[in-house]
Amino acid sequence: MATASDTEHQPTPRSQQQEPMKRHRNGEIWDFEDEMVVPSNRQVILGLDGGATSTVCVCMPFVPFSDPLPNPLPVLARAIAGCSNHNSVGEMAARETLEEVMADALLKSGSNRSAVRAVCLAVSGVNHPTDQRRILSWLRDIFPSHVRLYVQNDAVAALASGTMGKLHGCVLIAGTGTIAYGFTEDGREARAAGAGPVLGDWGSGYGIAALALTAVIRAHDGRGPHTKLTSSILHHLGLSSPDELIGWTYADPSWARIAALVPVVVSCADAGDEVANTILQDAVQELALSVKAVVRRLRLCGEDGQDSFPLVMVGGVLEANERWDIAKEVMNCISKDLPGAHPIRPKVEPAVGAALLAWNSFMKECHKEVYRR
Amino acid sequence: MATASDTEHQPTPRSQQQEPMKRHRNGEIWDFEDEMVVPSNRQVILGLDGGATSTVCVCMPFVPFSDPLPNPLPVLARAIAGCSNHNSVGEMAARETLEEVMADALLKSGSNRSAVRAVCLAVSGVNHPTDQRRILSWLRDIFPSHVRLYVQNDAVAALASGTMGKLHGCVLIAGTGTIAYGFTEDGREARAAGAGPVLGDWGSGYGIAALALTAVIRAHDGRGPHTKLTSSILHHLGLSSPDELIGWTYADPSWARIAALVPVVVSCADAGDEVANTILQDAVQELALSVKAVVRRLRLCGEDGQDSFPLVMVGGVLEANERWDIAKEVMNCISKDLPGAHPIRPKVEPAVGAALLAWNSFMKECHKEVYRR
Repeated sequence: MATASDTEHQPTPRSQQQEPMKRHRNGEIWDFEDEMVVPSNRQVILGLDGGATSTVCVCMPFVPFSDPLPNPLPVLARAIAGCSNHNSVGEMAARETLEEVMADALLKSGSNRSAVRAVCLAVSGVNHPTDQRRILSWLRDIFPSHVRLYVQNDAVAALASGTMGKLHGCVLIAGTGTIAYGFTEDGREARAAGAGPVLGDWGSGYGIAALALTAVIRAHDGRGPHTKLTSSILHHLGLSSPDELIGWTYADPSWARIAALVPVVVSCADAGDEVANTILQDAVQELALSVKAVVRRLRLCGEDGQDSFPLVMVGGVLEANERWDIAKEVMNCISKDLPGAHPIRPKVEPAVGAALLAWNSFMKECHKEVYRR
Repeated sequence: MATASDTEHQPTPRSQQQEPMKRHRNGEIWDFEDEMVVPSNRQVILGLDGGATSTVCVCMPFVPFSDPLPNPLPVLARAIAGCSNHNSVGEMAARETLEEVMADALLKSGSNRSAVRAVCLAVSGVNHPTDQRRILSWLRDIFPSHVRLYVQNDAVAALASGTMGKLHGCVLIAGTGTIAYGFTEDGREARAAGAGPVLGDWGSGYGIAALALTAVIRAHDGRGPHTKLTSSILHHLGLSSPDELIGWTYADPSWARIAALVPVVVSCADAGDEVANTILQDAVQELALSVKAVVRRLRLCGEDGQDSFPLVMVGGVLEANERWDIAKEVMNCISKDLPGAHPIRPKVEPAVGAALLAWNSFMKECHKEVYRR
């Protein structure tokens, strides 16, 4: 805790606190801080989970956590906003959403930026070190220099939500998008999929729904077999003909709007529709393939392929199924090749995972610094 | 010709000519008409071909054409502009592009709107009668009421460019997008595909290129086999890692930009790459399937499946191949099931097809009116 304490009691120079506020729309987002009296000793951490559909920010107290962690975890405040994937909504909109949701969580918790010790921003669309650097650079504009900042792909927060902050194992997210992400205890990492709908995320909610819409068009124009998906999807969308699906599809570029059709596809498969069934079977193969690719590259299953490792599973596609249970089928498919996969359904949300990650990363850095002395 | 002559010599009321000009950006597009002295007796027709990549407008004289048609056809002027698919660029931008390209063609031909007798606007993204009605309604704002207006999917112009204005047979377009469109001599019509990249136009240039990009991502993350596409595409785009492809893909929503990678895929297939080869083989199956679906629904091949019918083939994917000849493979695949398919490579461009279609439709309507009397 030496380093943490070092900076904890150093008052941040006023110039450092003020300058960033000026840069962002005249400080509008952070105006509330001027009117707020914050108890000087309460320090906090922020955890953010930004997906293609929504963004969640939680504010947790910066205190030494017991092992095992307290149950329930002390969450001071939670704020929610829209999509913050810069590939989907553009960089300006993504940045504004992230800034607003952090300000909102701090306001709700009765804190402000001067109380923040660490931030973990886990957001989809972080695919390359340049993405990380760009986001870190504008986060640095918002927070004083002693605040520890961590930027990760949102999959990392989802993994941490299942492992309570520990970066070890594999996570499979299948919501609007899909990605598999893995970490070894010695710090290696690998990912598969997560490249968005144009680049083959076929097991994602978007992928499943787009194939279902395609099946309706193909049945209509004679390229594909008849399917119950036609009447179900048209009824669900209030349309009268498959021709109208084309206009509906391109009227709005939101990936989440397409992905919202997944329950209709599951219902049709439950009702015995062969086309819907094949779409879900293919999605299962795709999702399992992503996990297997990551686990094999990292050798999470050991040299003999039998070692146990945590497999965290999250996202709308893996939840709330009816008779057709996508998550169960994916697990069956993975277990055949990787019998040591130990499925975990997180009990906390990914934003809390991000906050725990911020805390763990902070502590690790402090230890390193202590040992360097 | 009775009806044509009836309206030909009726001067259009000035109010009717002026009002539409006011509606569009203060008439800016049509300002040139005020300064132009047009020979009063030269009448013209406009043919437009609007695809996902570019829009072409030709202006032809409105004269009785001989049978067979004169060679070369008398084209007074040709103008070119960008994409006018409202699903791709939005309705406002599409409309502005179409209006500008018509004004440009008229200006170049030394004509203006008062010389126009008929317009055929064949544009991709016309998928439903409501699309047709919406476009007709704003075209009607631009031209006086005696001008005959025809709005069609751009596939119809491509067919007419191969059949010299006759609506009979099937056309296969495979450019940035793909569609198969057929007409019978008694006026029935059918189409397959043409629903855009989200809805399964897998044989299109966009579809081929997106699968190639996907193959690079999958090879990189361990889900798919190694492929020459990786080095070829990265080199072509000036990128250093497959991770960078994600940012490149979503930086610009243009479908044409993705489709422009098709020659790279063909080169890799020519060089023996199995992944590229499979992508092209699948595209061939998809394109052939679209044609077969249309021909069977319309029974263009007769009851016994042996009748001859024209099959017009156009678009970048079907042209300029190297050893791997997509068009030849598609034709082989179609001929197995439909031996009567008679392939035609148009000698004129689709915009000229649209103009011939406008002329034919005009003449047909006049004949009908004569017979009704």
